[in-house]
Amino acid sequence: MTTPSSLESLIEALRCLPGVGPKSAQRMAYHLMQHDREGAQRLAGALQLALTALRHCQRCNTFSEAEICSRCQSSKRDPALLCVVETPVDMNMLEQTHAYAGLYYVLMGRVSPLDGVGPAELRLERLLARACDGVVREVIIATNYTNEGEATAHYLGEMLRSRGVSVSRIARGVPVGGELEYVDAGTLAQALRERRPLAA
Amino acid sequence: MTTPSSLESLIEALRCLPGVGPKSAQRMAYHLMQHDREGAQRLAGALQLALTALRHCQRCNTFSEAEICSRCQSSKRDPALLCVVETPVDMNMLEQTHAYAGLYYVLMGRVSPLDGVGPAELRLERLLARACDGVVREVIIATNYTNEGEATAHYLGEMLRSRGVSVSRIARGVPVGGELEYVDAGTLAQALRERRPLAA
Ligand SMILES: [Zn+2]
Ligand SMILES: [Zn+2]
Repeated sequence: MTTPSSLESLIEALRCLPGVGPKSAQRMAYHLMQHDREGAQRLAGALQLALTALRHCQRCNTFSEAEICSRCQSSKRDPALLCVVETPVDMNMLEQTHAYAGLYYVLMGRVSPLDGVGPAELRLERLLARACDGVVREVIIATNYTNEGEATAHYLGEMLRSRGVSVSRIARGVPVGGELEYVDAGTLAQALRERRPLAA
Repeated sequence: MTTPSSLESLIEALRCLPGVGPKSAQRMAYHLMQHDREGAQRLAGALQLALTALRHCQRCNTFSEAEICSRCQSSKRDPALLCVVETPVDMNMLEQTHAYAGLYYVLMGRVSPLDGVGPAELRLERLLARACDGVVREVIIATNYTNEGEATAHYLGEMLRSRGVSVSRIARGVPVGGELEYVDAGTLAQALRERRPLAA
């Protein structure tokens, strides 16, 4: 009796957003209906448009409005290098370094048995097909250095190497500008173990 | 070049939600498009429906799909009592006590000069008209005991009393079940000042 059903439905629907519980869904719904109907209208339209327009690039698997995204179509990228990342955000981070001119494959996730995400859920056969297209010479695995990212890297390494693909992993160690005093022991231990010959 | 425009628009549109910054808007958009397109569809529909169906009750000003909400239309409520609250949530809190059978007026805000919200923005003339309908005998002000809620109560009190309306304020003091040891000094001081004769 107290809350109109369309308001109830809106509060309920807002809970599909990650990190939004019942209290904040209620706060959001009240805010939109009381103070920002224009924003609510824009959001409804943007959701509808994204649902219609967005799909995954057939080559790199990132979000795209075209069948093949503009980066995969670019003639300025080196098609012999394929960098595997977990998410589109990671890809953007790497792009911002301007240190990489190859192509990408976006997993849209990571191997995470606890969450029920295995190789099948990530549809890794698509990555395999992509990596074995005869043009790719090296796959650079740039998953996170978390437990799940490491497990994913390990799995991908096995899978790709068994098909004769050359695989590398981005380096880990002391961050550029990092002082040893402030680097955690695990990172420091890895940096020792993975030391490289000093450039002359 | 990197982010499709429909995805950019969705991320931007999600920022109309209170407490959602650029990072969480991005996370929400990716989550919806990757893992919960059904939820996104439901949210778009719920927003659209709420925008179409929801308005304010002509009598109590709360959200309603009807011109006059069901509570205001109920013959079981005492129309001589009018309780003024800041938000629909506050009204629901009071309803849950089952200690009040009068009617409500929902301000949909509070007097807050710092946020540019004054009596005009709250359209308090509507409350005045409501309180002076000849049936209301007492207005109970149940705004929060915050600075802004107190300022609002003070303003409403002056306004209503000058029209000859009888005005009261919900009590403040030690919470039921509260131990003095854990009650803040301000509340305790008020409880002392507002002491009442002990029931025989
Ligand atoms: Zn692509
Ligand atoms: Zn009403």
